Amino acid sequence: APSPQMQTVTLIPGDGIGPEISAAVVKIFESAKAPIRWEERNVTAIKGPGGKWMIPPDAKESMDRSKIGLKGPLKTPIAAGHPSMNLLLRKTFDLYANVRPCVSIEGYKTPYTDVDLVTIRENTEGEYSGIEHVIVDGVVQSIKLITENASRRIAEYAFEYARNNQRSSVTAVHKANIMRMSDGLFLRKCREVAENYKDIKFTEMYLDTVCLNMVQDPTQFDVLVMPNLYGDILSDLCAGLIGGLGVTPSGNIGANGVAIFESVHGTAPDIAGLDLANPTALLLSAVMMLRHMGLHEYASRIQTACFDTIRDKKVLTKDLGGNSKCSEFTSEICHRVQDLA
Amino acid sequence: APSPQMQTVTLIPGDGIGPEISAAVVKIFESAKAPIRWEERNVTAIKGPGGKWMIPPDAKESMDRSKIGLKGPLKTPIAAGHPSMNLLLRKTFDLYANVRPCVSIEGYKTPYTDVDLVTIRENTEGEYSGIEHVIVDGVVQSIKLITENASRRIAEYAFEYARNNQRSSVTAVHKANIMRMSDGLFLRKCREVAENYKDIKFTEMYLDTVCLNMVQDPTQFDVLVMPNLYGDILSDLCAGLIGGLGVTPSGNIGANGVAIFESVHGTAPDIAGLDLANPTALLLSAVMMLRHMGLHEYASRIQTACFDTIRDKKVLTKDLGGNSKCSEFTSEICHRVQDLA
Ligand SMILES: CC(C)[C@H](C(=O)O)[C@@H](O)C(=O)O
Ligand SMILES: CC(C)[C@H](C(=O)O)[C@@H](O)C(=O)O
Repeated sequence: APSPQMQTVTLIPGDGIGPEISAAVVKIFESAKAPIRWEERNVTAIKGPGGKWMIPPDAKESMDRSKIGLKGPLKTPIAAGHPSMNLLLRKTFDLYANVRPCVSIEGYKTPYTDVDLVTIRENTEGEYSGIEHVIVDGVVQSIKLITENASRRIAEYAFEYARNNQRSSVTAVHKANIMRMSDGLFLRKCREVAENYKDIKFTEMYLDTVCLNMVQDPTQFDVLVMPNLYGDILSDLCAGLIGGLGVTPSGNIGANGVAIFESVHGTAPDIAGLDLANPTALLLSAVMMLRHMGLHEYASRIQTACFDTIRDKKVLTKDLGGNSKCSEFTSEICHRVQDLA
Repeated sequence: APSPQMQTVTLIPGDGIGPEISAAVVKIFESAKAPIRWEERNVTAIKGPGGKWMIPPDAKESMDRSKIGLKGPLKTPIAAGHPSMNLLLRKTFDLYANVRPCVSIEGYKTPYTDVDLVTIRENTEGEYSGIEHVIVDGVVQSIKLITENASRRIAEYAFEYARNNQRSSVTAVHKANIMRMSDGLFLRKCREVAENYKDIKFTEMYLDTVCLNMVQDPTQFDVLVMPNLYGDILSDLCAGLIGGLGVTPSGNIGANGVAIFESVHGTAPDIAGLDLANPTALLLSAVMMLRHMGLHEYASRIQTACFDTIRDKKVLTKDLGGNSKCSEFTSEICHRVQDLA
């Protein structure tokens, strides 16, 4: 078979343990002979001409060309006025859908088994509008903005995702009993879009009920779609069910194939540089990326190697319950990737 | 010892299974010789003079006099424009604090043990302001309103609660990284109030992080205080950890001792009238009420009788894993209450 064409991916290693876990992913991809050319970029926010925060031009230029990014953790801004890089990236590339598959990992024990769901979060508006005012002294309002277009777009994304990933149902998560107009609009668009996907079951549920049912029996859920803040909450809750942010992949998807995949855990400065970090979340995010790029065979092979390593419990990083270094865990996955070839 | 003075409580049996579980509570209180005189009232919303929804005058009058209510489940309004009775009651009596203790119940198995936390939710403003607008066609805004006064008041309530209930820490739950002004104000008031309670440890955490950590290890939490919507979500999530709304008590507290205690589960119309309902949530809410009224000995006795019945697993309603009728479960608790006298 002819070897597939090399594709460029912008690699944003990030801070703290970011460089180590990025190096681990690069190594595993090499073992898999994945046809990826990495273009490494730093995305520390800089102040542009008008005093506006922006990502460095060479990072922007790389992403504009490659359309695909893989990103490690970034320090949360401490300086007042400094923007969250995560928000800035979502905004810069209009990454409107945050997608988080949460699947129980065999061999990694949590109170739950057989979790297999996906949260799809509207990533551009809602409670994240950034519009706030002081009305009078001691009275503040924040504006939650819901638009027809963004609601329709995320609903369509969710149903397309369900169809393309052999999922059978989509649940819209809302509080339209309280925010009748805004969540009402979101819900109406979900209902409308559902009409075009008769092969996918559509249900609606209150956010509080979803949280309650989720911790009682997460296996009842499949694809969930929701406004921004609800997605922030539910995606973390669901990550917790399968073992936390150290093992949960995430993708931010925009129009025309543009996407950034990322681990959503922190930078873990306490263990940075000590070869102790767990690269699983970034690796599984990179696997999502391969699927997004149509490189399914590479994706499956790397994912299998990673899950087999965790299931066998012989070579695990500390947070996964083992005693191995990041480099040892990485090598183990590399060997398995090669054996699977 | 002289028998304590009788105190009046307004009893709102509610819809569906409401009358059955209310009758169960009344029976158990009789067995305990609790010094309560019940004044039964219906609170179906009616339209007042200016077309404004209000609760019936005789219910309002009873509550104004007794200051204390016990309430079963109410049908959620189906008719458009009809208000949620829960919201109307909170508003009518300015019940600004929703308090939900979530404690693991011995003998009732869930994925978690040793949960022992309390969520304290600001009950009057935030995302529940009801202020929404269409900006232009397809663009809607909902306003989240946070005030200094309501934030200070709920923070003070949380710290007082912690102190009076031998709790050691209060965690403020927020998204002030996103809603810097509104959640920022809420958080600032919590910090200020914390200064006056040096005996209670104060921490702050993002809502998403709380959700993540909650499902991984709820035992790390103690008292949590938060704006309205976050409380709606977290209180249900936490109820799920200990077995759901069928076993979780709830209290809505206002100024000057005014309070309504309620079960927060639904009306279960499918089993209404069949003597199958589980009165535990309403009974434990009534136990919270007794404590609120200073009737601690009665509260402890009834609570012990209820928990012993569940732990012994001999007489349980269906939802608790048994085969007994509501009336049998109730009688079992009555006998135990008398034995404990
Ligand atoms: C870092 C923060 C701004 C962000 C959010 O609130 O969206 C994070 O929690 C996330 O989920 O990506
Ligand atoms: C019934 C509904 C209006 C209410 C809410 O959203 O507050 C309920 O979920 C609650 O928690 O009491």
